[in-house]
Amino acid sequence: MLDNLKSEVFKANLDLVSNGLVIHTWGNVSARDKNSGLIVIKPSGVNYKSMKPDDMVVLDPDGNVVEGKFKPSTDAPTHLLLYRTWASVGGIVHTHSSFATAWAQAGKGIPPFGTTHADHYFGEVPCTRSLTDNEIAIDYEINTGKIIIERMADIDPLSVPSVLVNSHGPFCWGTDAADAVYTAVSLEEIAKMAFYTVLLGQNQPVNSSLLDKHFRRKHGKGAYYGQGKS
Amino acid sequence: MLDNLKSEVFKANLDLVSNGLVIHTWGNVSARDKNSGLIVIKPSGVNYKSMKPDDMVVLDPDGNVVEGKFKPSTDAPTHLLLYRTWASVGGIVHTHSSFATAWAQAGKGIPPFGTTHADHYFGEVPCTRSLTDNEIAIDYEINTGKIIIERMADIDPLSVPSVLVNSHGPFCWGTDAADAVYTAVSLEEIAKMAFYTVLLGQNQPVNSSLLDKHFRRKHGKGAYYGQGKS
Amino acid sequence: MLDNLKSEVFKANLDLVSNGLVIHTWGNVSARDKNSGLIVIKPSGVNYKSMKPDDMVVLDPDGNVVEGKFKPSTDAPTHLLLYRTWASVGGIVHTHSSFATAWAQAGKGIPPFGTTHADHYFGEVPCTRSLTDNEIAIDYEINTGKIIIERMADIDPLSVPSVLVNSHGPFCWGTDAADAVYTAVSLEEIAKMAFYTVLLGQNQPVNSSLLDKHFRRKHGKGAYYGQGKS
Amino acid sequence: MLDNLKSEVFKANLDLVSNGLVIHTWGNVSARDKNSGLIVIKPSGVNYKSMKPDDMVVLDPDGNVVEGKFKPSTDAPTHLLLYRTWASVGGIVHTHSSFATAWAQAGKGIPPFGTTHADHYFGEVPCTRSLTDNEIAIDYEINTGKIIIERMADIDPLSVPSVLVNSHGPFCWGTDAADAVYTAVSLEEIAKMAFYTVLLGQNQPVNSSLLDKHFRRKHGKGAYYGQGKS
Repeated sequence: MLDNLKSEVFKANLDLVSNGLVIHTWGNVSARDKNSGLIVIKPSGVNYKSMKPDDMVVLDPDGNVVEGKFKPSTDAPTHLLLYRTWASVGGIVHTHSSFATAWAQAGKGIPPFGTTHADHYFGEVPCTRSLTDNEIAIDYEINTGKIIIERMADIDPLSVPSVLVNSHGPFCWGTDAADAVYTAVSLEEIAKMAFYTVLLGQNQPVNSSLLDKHFRRKHGKGAYYGQGKS
Repeated sequence: MLDNLKSEVFKANLDLVSNGLVIHTWGNVSARDKNSGLIVIKPSGVNYKSMKPDDMVVLDPDGNVVEGKFKPSTDAPTHLLLYRTWASVGGIVHTHSSFATAWAQAGKGIPPFGTTHADHYFGEVPCTRSLTDNEIAIDYEINTGKIIIERMADIDPLSVPSVLVNSHGPFCWGTDAADAVYTAVSLEEIAKMAFYTVLLGQNQPVNSSLLDKHFRRKHGKGAYYGQGKS
Repeated sequence: MLDNLKSEVFKANLDLVSNGLVIHTWGNVSARDKNSGLIVIKPSGVNYKSMKPDDMVVLDPDGNVVEGKFKPSTDAPTHLLLYRTWASVGGIVHTHSSFATAWAQAGKGIPPFGTTHADHYFGEVPCTRSLTDNEIAIDYEINTGKIIIERMADIDPLSVPSVLVNSHGPFCWGTDAADAVYTAVSLEEIAKMAFYTVLLGQNQPVNSSLLDKHFRRKHGKGAYYGQGKS
Repeated sequence: MLDNLKSEVFKANLDLVSNGLVIHTWGNVSARDKNSGLIVIKPSGVNYKSMKPDDMVVLDPDGNVVEGKFKPSTDAPTHLLLYRTWASVGGIVHTHSSFATAWAQAGKGIPPFGTTHADHYFGEVPCTRSLTDNEIAIDYEINTGKIIIERMADIDPLSVPSVLVNSHGPFCWGTDAADAVYTAVSLEEIAKMAFYTVLLGQNQPVNSSLLDKHFRRKHGKGAYYGQGKS
């Protein structure tokens, strides 16, 4: 079942590796089937070199395995909570990419220092609060999803399609798996540039009119970047 | 029309990717036809992997599309203003390469710290002022060109063939598209070295006699680097 | 003799190069044969490009050459002391990978700043004390092993499978050669992220409940990451 | 003439590129023929992609072109002075590799922070003084050689086979071209590690007994690293 979506999710996982965002098995991608609402996700801890499209696991929205010979990614409960909360999201990526993770480990959101950032995010890439000891002890992965949702409470997920989980790393999302991978690649580059920018002594985000301009060049009704939707 | 120039511009765009200066569609190259004065430029937001030479867009100096099935790069008005101002320039490159963009985001020009810099730039790589809210709201891309021209007012563009647009990133140029790409590659390496140099505690540019010497070894009448022009 | 183990050790040495951890001959891998207790190790100073599986050297636990036309790695006495001390260890890797070595040169252990670290190490990656002049002058390589053992005295080597030798670089280990290489790759990435994290102003390790949680997700009885041991 | 040496020098130049030390034409290699004392050197400003072994230029020790259709590297006078001064040197490399050049631009020698450094250099990698305006104006390239020799006055060139020219970049040397390239690769890695080490807060070089030990493990009469000279 869902063979095309499995192929998309499989390919998206490999794209994380070829884009230098993931070593070993330090990442995972999932996607939601628009018709059935089922989720396809990478199996847990399976080597990327031997992984096949058919190894992807199919889950229902509550996390029950509908099909698949492997256990799903341990982060599946986090993915599922995001899908249940955000109807607009069709693909989710989690990585430990170097610079984005460093910002997460520093417990800091990534300030919008320039137009590269503004082209992709309508404002700061936010960082969640830390989990409490209780939230870590019980239902850790669900609670990771909860602090993401809590942090994103007043934010449109498709206008700020990434969050940094404090002391952990980035989650990125989009309309489908490939879109989420695209954002994960952008995020790492933006996190790198922001790191260099801070070390050059800049601490002030760019003024909001430039941020608005660049975001709206690419997103929403007045967008004029690219060839239009057709 | 202009099939050779289209091929040059197409190849120059791909060279940005293979040199690690551009991910996704974060860059663009244009070139001017010496005879007709027409400009060939990359289409907006088209994926580099599927792009073909024939997808390049031909513009007249005022920005009217002369030939091409795609919309030109959104940055075309910036390119066109530079061409109209600088008769000596035949190719323009815009990237968001990591280190050069970090300097732009810090709002700082790149000081000439050594001979590598001096081989390519006769002085600092300058950074423009920020745009005002009005300049952002109306004719943003033309105004980007205007602050470049404003910053370069007293500078020969072929002696300082790059500028950093504040909070944005670098524009580079040259006698043709390949020359502008060459400079974009040099700039990123020079921006990287300057970043490391500053972090090692150096804040003073090298003395001007060394800068002059190295620039003149490669450029102008007394140049003795290379095999001469023949 | 031990042809399979020689192939494993040979391949593990090449994997250090392909993973960017080693240039020239700046690294070595060894492994222990579970049945005989013999050690297979890389020869000293042999070029990776011309090296063959059969060039690996077989040593008894006291360092006598049992088979091999080459001299063993100069670091062999360090490896052997670790094997004699730790029955659980079946493979050892030594590299001078850039970021891990920088931490060693700074004389600092790598603090656990996030879940990436906690997934692989149950606590800080420790750094040894410096060797005394006497310890350097006589039996240098054995004494390098002794300060590793001294530093790891109260630590399970498979829970913290790496150490930084002060002013030198990392040693990593595991159940076999491939496992030790896996850890060496992880260590370099973790050392890089920790470097970036410190430069972003973070000096406090993550709270211990998160460290415990992530380590135990992957290791020990209650582990639920991956597909289980079968 | 000297076809083998030309091939060695040609290959050594390409190895600078494949090892990531040189972009564009920012580097050069030369070697000395042991019998005739003639020098083979890269031509000036010739693209690496089109360069052929036969394009190498043969010079006598005073810099007269003995054979070759191209002009020699502009840095030839620097190379020649080093050859005339140091009988033990058979190959010289000049690069603008990123980290070594940053140290040169900071005007700082690279302190010996650990055993990686000590394996290759018997002490600091020194940095020259700046050239005076007069030394820049007249015989610039010869004077570059003179300040190298001045800085290395009390140092055996084969024990410290690199120097940083202030505000410029590294020169490396060895017994032949391949040996000099080997050192240029090592230098860049050592310069990178030292940069990271300084940023982690370490300013003190390692104690001299460890430096001595590691250098003597690999060099001189008591050396026991590698397979011996045979």
